[in-house]
Amino acid sequence: MVFPEVDEQLAYLRKGFSEIIREEDLRERLTAARAAGRPLRVKAGFDPTAPDLHLGHTVLLRKMKHFQDLGHTVIFLIGDMTGLIGDPTGRNITRPPMTREQIIANAETYKAQVFKILDPDKTEIRFNSEWLEGMRWEDVVRLTSKYTVARILERDDFAKRYAANVPISIHEFLYPLAQGYDSVALQCDVELGGTDQKFNLLVGRELQRDSGQPPQIVATVPLLEGLDGVEKMSKSKGNYVGIEEPPAVMVKKLMTISDDMMWRYFELLTDEPLAGIAELRRQAVSGERNPRDIKLDLARRIAQDFHPAEAAEAARAQWLRDVSEGQIPEDLETVQAADPRLNRILTQAKLAGSTSEADRLIKAGAVCFAPAGDGNLTAQTTPSFKLEPGEYVFRAGKRWKKVIV
Amino acid sequence: MVFPEVDEQLAYLRKGFSEIIREEDLRERLTAARAAGRPLRVKAGFDPTAPDLHLGHTVLLRKMKHFQDLGHTVIFLIGDMTGLIGDPTGRNITRPPMTREQIIANAETYKAQVFKILDPDKTEIRFNSEWLEGMRWEDVVRLTSKYTVARILERDDFAKRYAANVPISIHEFLYPLAQGYDSVALQCDVELGGTDQKFNLLVGRELQRDSGQPPQIVATVPLLEGLDGVEKMSKSKGNYVGIEEPPAVMVKKLMTISDDMMWRYFELLTDEPLAGIAELRRQAVSGERNPRDIKLDLARRIAQDFHPAEAAEAARAQWLRDVSEGQIPEDLETVQAADPRLNRILTQAKLAGSTSEADRLIKAGAVCFAPAGDGNLTAQTTPSFKLEPGEYVFRAGKRWKKVIV
Repeated sequence: MVFPEVDEQLAYLRKGFSEIIREEDLRERLTAARAAGRPLRVKAGFDPTAPDLHLGHTVLLRKMKHFQDLGHTVIFLIGDMTGLIGDPTGRNITRPPMTREQIIANAETYKAQVFKILDPDKTEIRFNSEWLEGMRWEDVVRLTSKYTVARILERDDFAKRYAANVPISIHEFLYPLAQGYDSVALQCDVELGGTDQKFNLLVGRELQRDSGQPPQIVATVPLLEGLDGVEKMSKSKGNYVGIEEPPAVMVKKLMTISDDMMWRYFELLTDEPLAGIAELRRQAVSGERNPRDIKLDLARRIAQDFHPAEAAEAARAQWLRDVSEGQIPEDLETVQAADPRLNRILTQAKLAGSTSEADRLIKAGAVCFAPAGDGNLTAQTTPSFKLEPGEYVFRAGKRWKKVIV
Repeated sequence: MVFPEVDEQLAYLRKGFSEIIREEDLRERLTAARAAGRPLRVKAGFDPTAPDLHLGHTVLLRKMKHFQDLGHTVIFLIGDMTGLIGDPTGRNITRPPMTREQIIANAETYKAQVFKILDPDKTEIRFNSEWLEGMRWEDVVRLTSKYTVARILERDDFAKRYAANVPISIHEFLYPLAQGYDSVALQCDVELGGTDQKFNLLVGRELQRDSGQPPQIVATVPLLEGLDGVEKMSKSKGNYVGIEEPPAVMVKKLMTISDDMMWRYFELLTDEPLAGIAELRRQAVSGERNPRDIKLDLARRIAQDFHPAEAAEAARAQWLRDVSEGQIPEDLETVQAADPRLNRILTQAKLAGSTSEADRLIKAGAVCFAPAGDGNLTAQTTPSFKLEPGEYVFRAGKRWKKVIV
């Protein structure tokens, strides 16, 4: 196997990481692997819960992809042992034990989503029950003897809970050790994770050293800010773009980010090398290109990661048409809506012939609205979304109405 | 099975415990067991190391015996799982893993010693590998989820080490939980241990409650003071009486304790009920009996626990003879010893014909000495014991010499 020059690999890999521990070790490992014609083994771990991924999750997946782009092997590790046990304290009612069938079904859902970014041929999908299930009492004792209580209590969340007298069950100490042991079992060269995972990733280094393996390089990705540019992207904050949303919705949502966030999204959500991003920035700053057009290109590229190129392009073109056609017509008919739910408003205002047509239009991102006088229409893709009482301008497809809710 | 009245049982059991948690629970459990004609299950745990017991260890064994005296079942639990693992940190070079054969051999040595006190027919000898060896990762997670880090760090020795920044390995947290789980596996009614074991014994109560079993009653025995009456009895302090020492040595050593310690030894080292001890004390205080005679009777009783009655009686009689014959003869021959070791001194002073004869005399307690002018001869049973330079009066059997070391 022939790999690119080490400097070239490093330049591509460096992008988008918060921290690499340590970059000189990564250089050394890449050099040795290249000399041996051996791909690096790069792990990232995932919960066995049913995934419903948004762009925030793809930051890590993209870094995995970058290793694959260079010819390395990526291990998509599903921490199913935790899922098989559930939350043994019984405190967390949302975490009852899962059956093996559920976990396998969840893994399939994962695959359908992550293989939009990852290359299946360069991905090992593994389950940590492979080695944890066979562990006996004495193996656990041996594993837990490798780490001290004081050091594990340094982990940020443990330290805070301990100081605040929030109970920590002893089994919670086992998980970082299990995660570290996963790296030993898989003989990882590199482990990737969020910045909040740094402690657990470092445990792997120590357990590998203890087992006579060279310690893995640890690299963390930052948390992606949501569309608002402030809070972390999450479903519950409503500031997200789901990777299964229609291309038109993706483009519309992404076009709402600030120009500043646009560079951040370029770094964390595209394969554009840092040099390319710097060039785009120069063009925007010098006035050579309209930042809006660069942003629209970003939105199209992101949509294209999850949809066919033509669909992404159609969404881009549609967005432009909508903007030019976006002037609110004068003398709109005003109707009264009794039910504040978006899909009901549509049928009551006769913007849709039925609730199911309304749902379809909403989900396709074809429905937008704004308080009357605001003019800045935004799409809303949740059919049951409830509007505050007030007067709104509505557009569904090509049709316009004024609605009092 | 018919058991004595509960009040009678309690009066006998109460003696010699530091603490019973809780006595009213013990009363209730005894009452229910008596009504059902069911013996209580009473556990005490022991390390799988090669035992070499002294009287300090018998305090616990005697309380086990007292339960047996009343018809209950005693479980002599050997914590072999620990032994099979050794000290996994590798810090403790004295604790490499033992083989199963070594552990079984040690168990045999234990039996030979403890069955001098315990009734083999009412003793279950168990090994905790029976249930710990089959434990899997998920079982350990479930077990460790039952207890919090903060609560386990309250254990006295952990608290001190944590405060002093002395490392505690995480596996050390597993042992109290394993010990508690032993009680669940064995369905114990009562667990006995030293006062330093109190925390671990209480963990068993909680795990049983969690498993739907009535929590065990916990009873702790105090640490026995050594012959000096100050420090805890131990081999390394030299203030001990080993249970395999010859009866004459036992009697001689025991006759050196203070009159105060005598009552303590009566309580912790004999089956004499509290009322009987109070009566003896009255006799001593009133001058009705010479305390020395009571002490000599105590020494004989203790010797008789480990040796035939005639041998114990012979040792008692011998001690009396030695005292009356104990006046140091005048005009002793003075010899010079070049080697300060006791057995070499004996051969050099021609008090023994050979080193092996010297060793035999010393081990039998037939050799005593005192600095010249002191007159208070004491026996020393370690052949290699080294004397400080000085002038001594020596007796070996019936022969006397003055020796300059």
